[in-house]
Amino acid sequence: MTQFRIEKDTMGQVNVPADKYWGAQTERSRNNFKIGPAASMPLEIVYGFAYLKKAAAYANCDLGVLSAEKRDLIAKVCDEILAGKLDDQFPLVIWQTGSGTQSNMNVNEVIANRAQELAGRKIGEGEKAIQPNDDVNKSQSSNDTFPTGMHIAAYKKIVETTIPGVEQLRNTLQAKSEAFKNVVKIGRTHLMDATPLTLGQEFSGYVAQLNFGLKALKNTLAHLSELALGGTAVGTGLNTPAGYDVLVAKYIAEFSGMPFITAENKFEALAAHDALVETHGALKQLAVSLNKIANDIRMMASGPRSGIGEIIIPANEPGSSIMPGKVNPTQCEAMTMVCAQVMGNDVAVTIGGTQGHYELNVFKPMMAANVLQSAQLLGDACVSFDENCAIGIEPNHPRIKELLNNSLMLVTALNTKIGYYKAAEIANTAHENGTTLKEEAVRLGYVTPEEYDAWVKPEDMIGSLK
Amino acid sequence: MTQFRIEKDTMGQVNVPADKYWGAQTERSRNNFKIGPAASMPLEIVYGFAYLKKAAAYANCDLGVLSAEKRDLIAKVCDEILAGKLDDQFPLVIWQTGSGTQSNMNVNEVIANRAQELAGRKIGEGEKAIQPNDDVNKSQSSNDTFPTGMHIAAYKKIVETTIPGVEQLRNTLQAKSEAFKNVVKIGRTHLMDATPLTLGQEFSGYVAQLNFGLKALKNTLAHLSELALGGTAVGTGLNTPAGYDVLVAKYIAEFSGMPFITAENKFEALAAHDALVETHGALKQLAVSLNKIANDIRMMASGPRSGIGEIIIPANEPGSSIMPGKVNPTQCEAMTMVCAQVMGNDVAVTIGGTQGHYELNVFKPMMAANVLQSAQLLGDACVSFDENCAIGIEPNHPRIKELLNNSLMLVTALNTKIGYYKAAEIANTAHENGTTLKEEAVRLGYVTPEEYDAWVKPEDMIGSLK
Amino acid sequence: MTQFRIEKDTMGQVNVPADKYWGAQTERSRNNFKIGPAASMPLEIVYGFAYLKKAAAYANCDLGVLSAEKRDLIAKVCDEILAGKLDDQFPLVIWQTGSGTQSNMNVNEVIANRAQELAGRKIGEGEKAIQPNDDVNKSQSSNDTFPTGMHIAAYKKIVETTIPGVEQLRNTLQAKSEAFKNVVKIGRTHLMDATPLTLGQEFSGYVAQLNFGLKALKNTLAHLSELALGGTAVGTGLNTPAGYDVLVAKYIAEFSGMPFITAENKFEALAAHDALVETHGALKQLAVSLNKIANDIRMMASGPRSGIGEIIIPANEPGSSIMPGKVNPTQCEAMTMVCAQVMGNDVAVTIGGTQGHYELNVFKPMMAANVLQSAQLLGDACVSFDENCAIGIEPNHPRIKELLNNSLMLVTALNTKIGYYKAAEIANTAHENGTTLKEEAVRLGYVTPEEYDAWVKPEDMIGSLK
Amino acid sequence: MTQFRIEKDTMGQVNVPADKYWGAQTERSRNNFKIGPAASMPLEIVYGFAYLKKAAAYANCDLGVLSAEKRDLIAKVCDEILAGKLDDQFPLVIWQTGSGTQSNMNVNEVIANRAQELAGRKIGEGEKAIQPNDDVNKSQSSNDTFPTGMHIAAYKKIVETTIPGVEQLRNTLQAKSEAFKNVVKIGRTHLMDATPLTLGQEFSGYVAQLNFGLKALKNTLAHLSELALGGTAVGTGLNTPAGYDVLVAKYIAEFSGMPFITAENKFEALAAHDALVETHGALKQLAVSLNKIANDIRMMASGPRSGIGEIIIPANEPGSSIMPGKVNPTQCEAMTMVCAQVMGNDVAVTIGGTQGHYELNVFKPMMAANVLQSAQLLGDACVSFDENCAIGIEPNHPRIKELLNNSLMLVTALNTKIGYYKAAEIANTAHENGTTLKEEAVRLGYVTPEEYDAWVKPEDMIGSLK
Repeated sequence: MTQFRIEKDTMGQVNVPADKYWGAQTERSRNNFKIGPAASMPLEIVYGFAYLKKAAAYANCDLGVLSAEKRDLIAKVCDEILAGKLDDQFPLVIWQTGSGTQSNMNVNEVIANRAQELAGRKIGEGEKAIQPNDDVNKSQSSNDTFPTGMHIAAYKKIVETTIPGVEQLRNTLQAKSEAFKNVVKIGRTHLMDATPLTLGQEFSGYVAQLNFGLKALKNTLAHLSELALGGTAVGTGLNTPAGYDVLVAKYIAEFSGMPFITAENKFEALAAHDALVETHGALKQLAVSLNKIANDIRMMASGPRSGIGEIIIPANEPGSSIMPGKVNPTQCEAMTMVCAQVMGNDVAVTIGGTQGHYELNVFKPMMAANVLQSAQLLGDACVSFDENCAIGIEPNHPRIKELLNNSLMLVTALNTKIGYYKAAEIANTAHENGTTLKEEAVRLGYVTPEEYDAWVKPEDMIGSLK
Repeated sequence: MTQFRIEKDTMGQVNVPADKYWGAQTERSRNNFKIGPAASMPLEIVYGFAYLKKAAAYANCDLGVLSAEKRDLIAKVCDEILAGKLDDQFPLVIWQTGSGTQSNMNVNEVIANRAQELAGRKIGEGEKAIQPNDDVNKSQSSNDTFPTGMHIAAYKKIVETTIPGVEQLRNTLQAKSEAFKNVVKIGRTHLMDATPLTLGQEFSGYVAQLNFGLKALKNTLAHLSELALGGTAVGTGLNTPAGYDVLVAKYIAEFSGMPFITAENKFEALAAHDALVETHGALKQLAVSLNKIANDIRMMASGPRSGIGEIIIPANEPGSSIMPGKVNPTQCEAMTMVCAQVMGNDVAVTIGGTQGHYELNVFKPMMAANVLQSAQLLGDACVSFDENCAIGIEPNHPRIKELLNNSLMLVTALNTKIGYYKAAEIANTAHENGTTLKEEAVRLGYVTPEEYDAWVKPEDMIGSLK
Repeated sequence: MTQFRIEKDTMGQVNVPADKYWGAQTERSRNNFKIGPAASMPLEIVYGFAYLKKAAAYANCDLGVLSAEKRDLIAKVCDEILAGKLDDQFPLVIWQTGSGTQSNMNVNEVIANRAQELAGRKIGEGEKAIQPNDDVNKSQSSNDTFPTGMHIAAYKKIVETTIPGVEQLRNTLQAKSEAFKNVVKIGRTHLMDATPLTLGQEFSGYVAQLNFGLKALKNTLAHLSELALGGTAVGTGLNTPAGYDVLVAKYIAEFSGMPFITAENKFEALAAHDALVETHGALKQLAVSLNKIANDIRMMASGPRSGIGEIIIPANEPGSSIMPGKVNPTQCEAMTMVCAQVMGNDVAVTIGGTQGHYELNVFKPMMAANVLQSAQLLGDACVSFDENCAIGIEPNHPRIKELLNNSLMLVTALNTKIGYYKAAEIANTAHENGTTLKEEAVRLGYVTPEEYDAWVKPEDMIGSLK
Repeated sequence: MTQFRIEKDTMGQVNVPADKYWGAQTERSRNNFKIGPAASMPLEIVYGFAYLKKAAAYANCDLGVLSAEKRDLIAKVCDEILAGKLDDQFPLVIWQTGSGTQSNMNVNEVIANRAQELAGRKIGEGEKAIQPNDDVNKSQSSNDTFPTGMHIAAYKKIVETTIPGVEQLRNTLQAKSEAFKNVVKIGRTHLMDATPLTLGQEFSGYVAQLNFGLKALKNTLAHLSELALGGTAVGTGLNTPAGYDVLVAKYIAEFSGMPFITAENKFEALAAHDALVETHGALKQLAVSLNKIANDIRMMASGPRSGIGEIIIPANEPGSSIMPGKVNPTQCEAMTMVCAQVMGNDVAVTIGGTQGHYELNVFKPMMAANVLQSAQLLGDACVSFDENCAIGIEPNHPRIKELLNNSLMLVTALNTKIGYYKAAEIANTAHENGTTLKEEAVRLGYVTPEEYDAWVKPEDMIGSLK
């Protein structure tokens, strides 16, 4: 049978499970918001809070409003949180108050009660070693801590998961582009046969897409590195000591190892979350690029006998529970599903971003959760796609050659010799008769066989553009 | 040089081009909202207003609050509007007040001034034969007229353009499905070779999609047929005579020939436009279906030599300004672009729908314009796709046969004879060795050549499902 | 240290944790798709599979292709799954192959290995009591089981969670609408003062919105009740006994207690998931409605001293970690965050729906997961909103009266007495002078004080419309 | 009666209206794509083509593949197009082939036929002075010209319309922020009363939002400045002289006065339009910001008597056709409708961006049209909003003071004096009793009246943060 202890807040008493560190406000929120699975608030945000609570304790101490003893107690619990030791102490959901107030209080309460233990006292008995509001939350408000926590979480996720994942895939595609630089193949536009290019050139387009996407994503980091902390309730910084905002950001940067700074304008930082909108916009752009790449690869790998079949991708799982021997482009499918999710998430983040009212945007947990999910999924999917698919892509040389030599679009090489209209006549006639370009070109009297062979060389049609 | 006359409203005097019927409020709006191209407010909505203004005049007269003379004058101008004679009298844009108040006044003013002429008087001189607010707008508010006008416009567009267009394409695909019912071809799942089906079965899936879509769209018409008129300013029906709301809807139904009724709840009808959200949701579903269909068709038609090439579609335009003889699936491209637009429009309509405040949603013109655009584009695109592509689709029999017979997935027919695992071994071995299923099946000793021929028959693998 | 056993599939051997029932294919997928949190594939879909595997065993047995012993063993494990006893046996993620093939195999493998135990044998030793492909998956393919499982899951979720949740909230709002039917308050259009209505009328609009939304959602259930099962690999029903598709749907309906039927067209049911698009479209419509309602309620409850303050909502949590005594509309915030998520999910589902290729749509897990999440969140949020907010809404009578009597828009009552222009003059003058309507009406000489009192009565301005 | 002349292309003869310069391919497209209103292809793209056709003529001439006479003829017609003299010669729609091939040919044909006239010859008679494919289109393909034309058009629109429009509004808001820097008002979070700030601080948040948005938009210009021209059919640059791509971009930059450069990777530039996705992402971010700003302003201006009423905005039009004297926040409504459209357009552009296949994305016209619409609407709406609303915003000082002094959240100032819990008790008691904070603070014995007056000063609670 669950044991309870009594916790209090400004509204009165609440029964809380005795084996948990959280207090009255967490418990209220847990009971008032039974929406979706429990504990859906991302742990990354909790860790973001741990960085900022520790940094606030240090800044408050430096500025003379918190004792060193309290600072150290708070910091010690924050370190435990960051070490993952208290993961089961954060039971709240995304779908709570849009300011994340109770998630802030959850952290405050856990730190205070755990500190009580660390101070050798008993939770709920005697004086509190640390007060959740007056100490842990000192110089803070939910309104500036939650956006700070979500910026820390999002920044870290993008720098540690998304960018490395995309770069890993980009590097493999770059290596493939170089490896395939002499593999001349038919080009396709409108899904229809077109003039040739190399498989390496095709892959170089993918590399360029990801490079643009990475650049766009990195462009958003400056905005994301700005922290709301120090704005407190409405952005004015009420109840903070002078210099606090800059100092606390410096400590967060130090503890996290990432270049966080205090937001230039705290009113924007509380009332709008355009930084998340901006960052997710770049994630969405990457989803667009990755969707194109994954889609191309599955089309090129289609077959094995009745598709395009120009490349061979690794066979990782039996492809069908009914069709024996089937192998499918499953990594492409996982990737494009992730891309669709990210594009959907973008709309959720966008809508949330529009709906700040006056001094506060109250779509914070939803916006943050979507950014974190998209960042995680894209990073993971790139690594998975890379290691289980891209790395193993090989050209199917005989098939590539066969499709190239069949193509009627090689006639384009004759444009500059005999003009577009005569060239078109050759292609149309060959298409109708099911013959070769050369046959018709000679039969129509536009070129000699020798001229044809000299002028229509796929390997000369791939240009000098990389 | 433009001549002007002076028009007045409750805010004072305004100069209006002398050759136009509109008045002060229209001119104010024209000057205050220079956003995007002029006159972007869809004419369909203006026509919707013409129906309702005429109906209101009749209802007001029947109920004793408008003279028969005024009724007839108003009705006469409404008929001129509906005949398209006054199309250049509606210069306002979508991006105005979100209630469309000035578009309502534009109609009121044009009717009043044109009526002045019809009454043999001079515009701007003497007493007004018809007052724009007190007569034309009698028993009305922008808040109930604009949503009424947009419902009329949307309903008509869907019934007259979207549904017939989709049905026309559906009928062609149905005919193709029957025509192709004996064309056995390779199936493809994950873009990979799978067990066979007929081309007719494949097309039957498209028909089913469109039938579901049409049903879903028709399901939304009941909500759309409800008219806000009679709710006036906030839904209470202030300043309307008893029985007016039902009567005016009856007249609108009579004049338009469509089954409009008065909205059961006028508060919903002003403050929310979920009817538009609902209808556009069904348009979006059709876009999803049409995107799938158009995409399949372009993939099946890809080639002519280095693609799938299972079907032949009409060649409508030279496909390339540089590649002679190229033909492209251009109708598929137009269709999928339309689908993407409709999916985007759905988000705009959705966002607009969320943002009603208290008694009024003020995203009316934007929501209505998007519904009308999507309904028009889908209807037109279906007709264009039908007449310039679908109608001419023909199977490429030799190619279909070639791809079918190559397929390793025919091995599935052996599952029930020798089990999944042995069947897989046959397929895998044939794939690795580049041999045929039959060769390997016999070589591995799992079947005799006679058994193979008896058991592996594509034409027996297409089931009895239609 | 984790113990492993060796499992085999058509690709070879795989080490699998010895304490798990799953087999080689599940383990391959687990290793190949490390994307996002583990085991993200919704359990609801696993349960959907349990219904269908049991039903397939019964149908196969009835039709003479499976023994009664095997049927009973399979059914027994399915019952265990449905009882939640094997929840930890399904470790796969959403972001796998888009057909969900390995999730189908996960179920097949777990059933086969657990059946081995139930048959008194040891897993991995001796002959298999039940083969995962040839027995559990008999007459099935991933391509028809996964869409069947997801339709079962989505249908149940909507019928058991979404609809009851929305109805619960609708009923409360209906009761409030009746309770508040005599509370005359100021109307607001464009956020600006307008003519009066009752608070009950205002709430009746919310009820109407939810009624329309429920109707729209229920309209989609027919499509969702159609099951793909029996189509097998590509929709043709290859390898199924005659009558299987109808019979297996009958068993699913019986076991689940819900009116499932076999899909009329299996090609549509595999290649397109327009049923999910359609259902999610209706969920999105509900999100639009709920967003409007929640937004209105928080605006009306704003204050307590410097906002609108017309209604009082329950105070559930301390509202601020820095501002003492603050109470916030937190249920409105959770609700609108849910709505934004649902609107985003709609785009993900839509995009997934467009991308079926030929015989298969490979966005199944993503589409299903989004439908399930939206259905769950909307249902839960409605209950939470109802129980923690709507049920406790009370009018703030003094404030309502104060705001009503201040309003200049009461002048509208004079339109039918003195005309729109004179009425406007009264309102404009009172606005400029900061006086009352009555003062100016009399001073301008348009009405007597007695007339004013007789004609301008808010309680007479609320119409007879409900 | 329309006169026709016969024009030819590689498919045969076509009747074309005799009074038009366009040729066979334009006419084919006009007949084959009757989707939506005629001539919907944005003229901005036509002008983009005019720049590039002229630049190509110059580059071709410099590189020895086109005569100076032909160059000058081509350039002359391009100048006429840019002067707007040939606007009625471009009848095609957005919903055509997704490569815009016929719009490229439309330009080629108009240039060739108009050049025929300029050369003193008769259209359709004798030798052509200029060939549409071999001369006007020399060293080009639709596949590199259309994306070049759309980049030119989008870049110009953003630089000439969007950015100046947003900057104009930003500057006004900046000036207002400074003008209002001493206007202390109540803050609001969760729409509920919070601690004070100045109206200037509130507006500074809007300025910060727009500054971030402008920066994000400018960040996308580098990608947009890269031109595909020189890639020809598939990105290889087939049929172009050496050095052409760099040279032609230089000429485009010179003629347009904008810093265009040749794309580093032509494969990306044809097959993906991530540059448009990226740019539209930034437009969407601006829409998010502008939506927040416009929404705040209409809430603050709500009333005049029964709303918030803290600011006064210009009264531009009579606000109601039924409620005399009503004035509405119409510019806010136009703005938020534009924002919703831009958010919808973002999804259309995103979806289009995902669907490039192999060497070509065939959603070009749709993507470009949406970028151009969003860029135009945002720029125009900012100017309209600025000139008709923002510029005239004034504080309603008495109302601001009244709401500020009522606020219970001033109690926050006591946190650092008496602690959060006692402060909460004061606020809660005052709320329940309908009394003032000071009364209860003193009555509860927590502060003296003198202390209260010294500690609770709104003007001291606005911090030093700007």
